[in-house]
Amino acid sequence: MKNSLGREIPESIKGYKPVVPFRGAFNYTPEGKYHTRKIDATYPTKQTKVMNSIEDAIREVELTDGMTVSFHHHLRNGDYVVNTVISTLSKMGIKDLKLASTALFPIHRDIIPFIKDGTITRIESSLNGPVGRLITEGFLEYPIVLRSHGGRARAIYSGDLEIDVAFIAAPSADIYGNISGLYGPSACGSLGYAFSDARHAKKVIAITDTLLEYPISPISIPQTEVDIMVKVDQIGDPKGIVSGTTRITKDPTRLKIAEMAAELIKVSGLLKDGFSFQTGAGGISLAVAKFVRDTLREKKIKGSFGLGGITGYFVDMLKEGLFRTLLDVQCFDLEAVKSLRENAAHQEISADFYANPHNKGCIVNMLDTVILGATEIDLDFNVNVNTEFDGALVHGIGGHQDTAAGAKLTIVVSPLLRGRIPTVAERVLTVTTPGETIDAFVSEYGIAVNPRREELIQRAKEANLPLITMEELLNIANKLVGKPDPLPLTNKIIGIIEYRDGTVIDVVRAPEKV
Amino acid sequence: MKNSLGREIPESIKGYKPVVPFRGAFNYTPEGKYHTRKIDATYPTKQTKVMNSIEDAIREVELTDGMTVSFHHHLRNGDYVVNTVISTLSKMGIKDLKLASTALFPIHRDIIPFIKDGTITRIESSLNGPVGRLITEGFLEYPIVLRSHGGRARAIYSGDLEIDVAFIAAPSADIYGNISGLYGPSACGSLGYAFSDARHAKKVIAITDTLLEYPISPISIPQTEVDIMVKVDQIGDPKGIVSGTTRITKDPTRLKIAEMAAELIKVSGLLKDGFSFQTGAGGISLAVAKFVRDTLREKKIKGSFGLGGITGYFVDMLKEGLFRTLLDVQCFDLEAVKSLRENAAHQEISADFYANPHNKGCIVNMLDTVILGATEIDLDFNVNVNTEFDGALVHGIGGHQDTAAGAKLTIVVSPLLRGRIPTVAERVLTVTTPGETIDAFVSEYGIAVNPRREELIQRAKEANLPLITMEELLNIANKLVGKPDPLPLTNKIIGIIEYRDGTVIDVVRAPEKV
Repeated sequence: MKNSLGREIPESIKGYKPVVPFRGAFNYTPEGKYHTRKIDATYPTKQTKVMNSIEDAIREVELTDGMTVSFHHHLRNGDYVVNTVISTLSKMGIKDLKLASTALFPIHRDIIPFIKDGTITRIESSLNGPVGRLITEGFLEYPIVLRSHGGRARAIYSGDLEIDVAFIAAPSADIYGNISGLYGPSACGSLGYAFSDARHAKKVIAITDTLLEYPISPISIPQTEVDIMVKVDQIGDPKGIVSGTTRITKDPTRLKIAEMAAELIKVSGLLKDGFSFQTGAGGISLAVAKFVRDTLREKKIKGSFGLGGITGYFVDMLKEGLFRTLLDVQCFDLEAVKSLRENAAHQEISADFYANPHNKGCIVNMLDTVILGATEIDLDFNVNVNTEFDGALVHGIGGHQDTAAGAKLTIVVSPLLRGRIPTVAERVLTVTTPGETIDAFVSEYGIAVNPRREELIQRAKEANLPLITMEELLNIANKLVGKPDPLPLTNKIIGIIEYRDGTVIDVVRAPEKV
Repeated sequence: MKNSLGREIPESIKGYKPVVPFRGAFNYTPEGKYHTRKIDATYPTKQTKVMNSIEDAIREVELTDGMTVSFHHHLRNGDYVVNTVISTLSKMGIKDLKLASTALFPIHRDIIPFIKDGTITRIESSLNGPVGRLITEGFLEYPIVLRSHGGRARAIYSGDLEIDVAFIAAPSADIYGNISGLYGPSACGSLGYAFSDARHAKKVIAITDTLLEYPISPISIPQTEVDIMVKVDQIGDPKGIVSGTTRITKDPTRLKIAEMAAELIKVSGLLKDGFSFQTGAGGISLAVAKFVRDTLREKKIKGSFGLGGITGYFVDMLKEGLFRTLLDVQCFDLEAVKSLRENAAHQEISADFYANPHNKGCIVNMLDTVILGATEIDLDFNVNVNTEFDGALVHGIGGHQDTAAGAKLTIVVSPLLRGRIPTVAERVLTVTTPGETIDAFVSEYGIAVNPRREELIQRAKEANLPLITMEELLNIANKLVGKPDPLPLTNKIIGIIEYRDGTVIDVVRAPEKV
């Protein structure tokens, strides 16, 4: 069957819930009740939750074949917890696990042997290069399920993703299970993505290298949601967790793109008191942030909130009074960690609060502007961030779908070509984010505004911004590097791209040549 | 049938869940899953939740006859919200409601006409004098269900108390439903008791007099749990909300009691680094806090946490470094509100986190010492805080059961006589808190340690503390004021005293003479 974007979706997919095809960004009404778990009882006879080893904890929670284990990715490329736990599970002979991490990084290539040996047979997670390559080669019997940050929270809250045991990497904690990301050698700041897991998993095991006096202060994930604490030597490598500083691009092409994006924000009418903003930590995004900051300063505009993965750049804007508050689901650098520790106006938020479409209102709904990237964008403004030109499924969704759906102005920025690979396509190989939620694409050749946004086109014209159409961009790309041949694909579905509301926006088929 | 304290409990009680008799403080294992609610969906087309009036909001959530409405009591005797909402519901002709407030205060005597006219026919709430008198007179067809703070959270989490519409008094808020108790003319500080309601009620309506710019910072109850905002002129009278300062008793008898209680804490072995402590805001309690503070200072002991309803007294101890953190479910005075606003080591906690026995571990489990009051205490150390000598059911449970069960040392303090009414009885009229969780009773005649606590008796003896038995105290009381006649009771059950685990520890029968 075809979904509302004309993507061919199977009626059913092995190991996956009943398929509901995507039907538009805001057209799905969920049914049923939120997931819940068994009632616990903990009396004061128990005065510590600390166990001696991960193995003991795994035995205690009776983790067995076929269960779902979850992890969060705030320790990013410095995380030791995923690798340690999965190798322990493998050593214990546990098989056929579903891995539900919020994301995987290159450091997690160490779990590849445990995918190959059948310890992990299913993955519902964001992913990264090495594991993505393996999946592209068809190593998993079941397709990987990819979700956005908000979509993952939704899946957990709705029960679509039922976690048996959540493992939480805890930079600092106490013996009764209170957790904070603010302290310890592996301090990562916000633990935003782990909140849903702690709230819904049947059992919660926190792994820490830093046990502080009871009770820690401030408390991020509370003792009321943690069953077991395990103390290990090191949960991560600080060097891989957060970068020292995040940097603005110096490339003139990219700076030009950033400047045009900033101009579009200016003419949108959104840049006034109360302005709210999200960018990633990429070079162009940060450059847009710089231009926006300059304008806020110059026009003495006072923004309301900065959102998302937070960088030192946003911290500076908070300090300067250009935002009243930062809402932080993940710290990208040490400045952000420090700020979350010291500044009460810098608030930690959960993925549910950030971006779950199925609660009483998440924050992206109130976001003015977001700057996003793309691997590909097509004539309908549909964006692909998951698959590469060769069909390799090597990137996760992150907050892409969520912020695009929520923000009043969603701008995708990218050079038209990366090497000889064009960003603009007639039809993206994989739809991650539907075009109806993308307002503009800015490349070095100008600004393509989504024809649905007539008012924005009008404003941009009046301001003499360099407008261009997607068709024109496609022609330029074709002239420069030739029209690309369609990629030969097999029929084997290796990935499901879930939209944030739980419908299927696309599936990924294995390429013929890997 | 009789429960484990020998109290006669009916097999079934009209309007109440299947009766489970109390079986000991730590002997009940809950079954089933936590309560959950219908999945919502909120897309960004909705940019404000503000409605024009309480009436509109009530219509919007389709509040009808027979439903359960809830409120929290942080505005205490200055609260306008309960009276306004109930009178609005009555005007709208809605009948047969169940009122589930976290507590009622004298100001809520204004709802009495709406109990009499059938707007409210059932109450599951703490209560106060005027409404209690009415209930004692038999005005409610169904008995009132009284729960502790932790027990109420448990009842909501378990689904025993299912709330249709929660009304939240919001001292400050924004248009999208983020709430904080820290700002506004009716600032009350912690909103700890309202968290369970916001998380579990089918619909949540917040009523505020102070709409601040979106998003407020810091956020206490999040927008993800609030359906509707209503702006009114005034949610409360600041004079009734928090007292300017809370005062230590100057009465020599009470000071003597406080001093003996402090001596008992000293010999208990608990007064060392990491010491944690809770007292109420009563005169004797605060005097005990003063003596404890002096000892901490003198011996350079660094406590861990102060818990509960927080007073300026505990704030001073935090500032002085005598506690590392305060965990605050309710602010008792302006100093506490100010501290919660300014000091990151002063943390707001929910009633679930504070005292729900049925999660993965609440904070009272880790509490060292609590000082509690009593209306009556008997030879088995069972305590009554609910009914007066004349059988009037006029007081709630508060955190009494919870902290007694959790704390390693629970001390009840009271003069032996109040007027001509003795505190010590052979058998309390109503059991609120089981004797097994009470370690000592301190009156002006000495310290009665629970015989179960052999080690504590030994320590007290070695320190030459003035020990006395409950039997001796009863004799003294009898000599002073005569042995009281048993109170003639009818068979009509007007109240159910639920233990914090959901079992029935006692029922209250209407007195013959009211």
